Amino acid sequence: MTGSSVNEERLLGRLRELGSIGRDKDGRLVRLAASDADKDGRDRLIAWMQEAGLDVAVDRIGNIFGIWAPIQADDTAKPLMLGSHIDTVINAGVLDGCYGVLSGLEVVETLKSEGFNPSRPIAIAAFTNEEGVRYAPDMMGSLVHVGGLDADEALATVGTDGSVLGEELARIGYAGPHQPGFLQPHAYIELHIEQGPILEREETPVGAVENLQGISWQRVTIEGDANHAGTTPISMRRDAGLAAARVITFLRDRATASNTPTVATVGCMEFEPNAINVIPSKATFTVDLRDPDEEKLLAEEAALATYLDTIADDEQVTITTKCLARFQPVTFDSGIVAAVVEAATARGLKSKRMTSGAGHDAQMIARIAPSGMIFVPSIGGISHNPKEFTPDTDLVAGANVLLDVVRNLTAPEN
Amino acid sequence: MTGSSVNEERLLGRLRELGSIGRDKDGRLVRLAASDADKDGRDRLIAWMQEAGLDVAVDRIGNIFGIWAPIQADDTAKPLMLGSHIDTVINAGVLDGCYGVLSGLEVVETLKSEGFNPSRPIAIAAFTNEEGVRYAPDMMGSLVHVGGLDADEALATVGTDGSVLGEELARIGYAGPHQPGFLQPHAYIELHIEQGPILEREETPVGAVENLQGISWQRVTIEGDANHAGTTPISMRRDAGLAAARVITFLRDRATASNTPTVATVGCMEFEPNAINVIPSKATFTVDLRDPDEEKLLAEEAALATYLDTIADDEQVTITTKCLARFQPVTFDSGIVAAVVEAATARGLKSKRMTSGAGHDAQMIARIAPSGMIFVPSIGGISHNPKEFTPDTDLVAGANVLLDVVRNLTAPEN
Repeated sequence: MTGSSVNEERLLGRLRELGSIGRDKDGRLVRLAASDADKDGRDRLIAWMQEAGLDVAVDRIGNIFGIWAPIQADDTAKPLMLGSHIDTVINAGVLDGCYGVLSGLEVVETLKSEGFNPSRPIAIAAFTNEEGVRYAPDMMGSLVHVGGLDADEALATVGTDGSVLGEELARIGYAGPHQPGFLQPHAYIELHIEQGPILEREETPVGAVENLQGISWQRVTIEGDANHAGTTPISMRRDAGLAAARVITFLRDRATASNTPTVATVGCMEFEPNAINVIPSKATFTVDLRDPDEEKLLAEEAALATYLDTIADDEQVTITTKCLARFQPVTFDSGIVAAVVEAATARGLKSKRMTSGAGHDAQMIARIAPSGMIFVPSIGGISHNPKEFTPDTDLVAGANVLLDVVRNLTAPEN
Repeated sequence: MTGSSVNEERLLGRLRELGSIGRDKDGRLVRLAASDADKDGRDRLIAWMQEAGLDVAVDRIGNIFGIWAPIQADDTAKPLMLGSHIDTVINAGVLDGCYGVLSGLEVVETLKSEGFNPSRPIAIAAFTNEEGVRYAPDMMGSLVHVGGLDADEALATVGTDGSVLGEELARIGYAGPHQPGFLQPHAYIELHIEQGPILEREETPVGAVENLQGISWQRVTIEGDANHAGTTPISMRRDAGLAAARVITFLRDRATASNTPTVATVGCMEFEPNAINVIPSKATFTVDLRDPDEEKLLAEEAALATYLDTIADDEQVTITTKCLARFQPVTFDSGIVAAVVEAATARGLKSKRMTSGAGHDAQMIARIAPSGMIFVPSIGGISHNPKEFTPDTDLVAGANVLLDVVRNLTAPEN
């Protein structure tokens, strides 16, 4: 059931305009949650929502909802919610988050202009502090929305700059009157850039996201002996740096051999005393393990733990680990996934069922409603960077797929 | 030809006394070259030399010589030189360097008191700035002494604290009148703590040092791509950190397999951007390679270069290297080595022909005269640290071996 298409010019123009708000003196896009720049972006979004005739509601954690509740729809029914976030990292691209929010708005305006009568309200959501750069944890607004974090606790969060989130939201006028979770979705769909290289590599414009990887973050600390690099025979060394290197190669060799989507990354590394002629007495590093299957993720964690025991013995070092974060994988709604594939096919677009490697608000909303995501290609897999880029054709195609999925899911017979 | 033994109490007492000079407010031993603390140590040493009846001479780079030229000796003959240094690192132990200088002085006093008539003068040397902590390069005083570095250039060296060595030497009264190299040694012997674990492990009190390792220091920089740790499949990564880890394990596995004294150490490591969820785009690390055989050291360097090419291909990363330091191995005089072994045996002490893994003034003096070194055990291989320790018995045994070697090498028939 395909009708009109979105207004390309309006959608792309709004992406550019929102992306011009919050530039610092070096021209970098920086709209950290609850900052002055975030206020400017929020104000712009709400003005567009109001121009589109939506009812705007803001809750206590600053989540923004633009609600289209046509008279003919059952306005007591739960809305179909479309959303993402508009806060950014430091020196961001213009698409991450904003693309999903503005496409949702674009879909509503297109449906309104074609005289479509949805069977239930449609709400556009912009969740507070998805990026988590200024206030931890990330995906905070959606987490509070689903009751996974107490609103008062979240509002008391102290930021990296010493500010308190609740005070900052009040200061910029976005400490809204509504209780978080006041608007329960019937279902939730988030359109987002992939932030990975798979769709580009496979020349596929649409990703139907089936699930989202579980994430396990650990900090590993290895302690050995800081001895003289010249006078200590190899056999007598307790080299923390060598043990750390063995862990890195173990993780890579295991991930390569496993033939599963498991990914393992050591992103942070520090040696002590970090001197050219001293054997490292201490190596501290992080391990980021991800897998869409909880059992496999548990198995990877266990394999790492076993290997750490082995290497502690082999290299005569002491190893301790600390869990920094742990999220179970999320499975999205199969009906929504199928609807995305179907909509893409109807538009003649190749699609791929895939896993999200990054975290998104959709993983939080999935706790309370059937949820799904649509991905479009990220050129070079780059995001969180001004080089973040998706061709206009793909941005428009993704929005049209969202349009068709929404039309199908809110068709009067549904 | 064994006569009396050194005065244990005097030697150990002086080691303690010199080690008490230059303590900072936290009790740490810090006698950096040409500092006020260094002046205090030098003053103490010269007072002891003068009490022992030695002629004291200081050269322009601050090297101190205490010369015993008995009337019956040929005072136009080149002296047998015994020495080391008395400057220290920050938070040092009391033995490194000082043990060799004070033992040399002790040997001369012992020989004098037993009425020994040496065939040539005996000189005790304390070379300026062996540690190189405040002014680079290390082993500076002995390097200038042998003409390997111009004295004026050395005196113009700017320290880590912005001071100029020549000005500091003048300020503390140790810019002496003699031209560096004015006192050419007939031979040179340096008694030193091992700074490594081998003698302790092998329960051997005396090391007859045959040679000193060549040293090759490089900085290796690996560049890849900083992509998202969650969304970038393993096969599409250009992970600079993983490539660095492979280099570390390669070096270790090669050193272990080689069954030679080659040692390889990666002491410094940095990842960029050093973020938990970002694949490292850059890894910068140091490689310290040492081998007593120049051909083997060249072979190790070549093997590393070949491996870096391989890993650059395998991991699709870019690798550059920069040489930070390169010293060829030094071979000590076989006659002196044999004399050390013989003297140890005559005293009933087990000895071991061995390689020095650390750098010493003796490697510089070896350029102009037959040279050798005697090592005593370092407990746990620890040095450059307050935990640096050698049992008194071993300290005294080492000094007695030096005494006997000096007695043999300067016996009237020689």
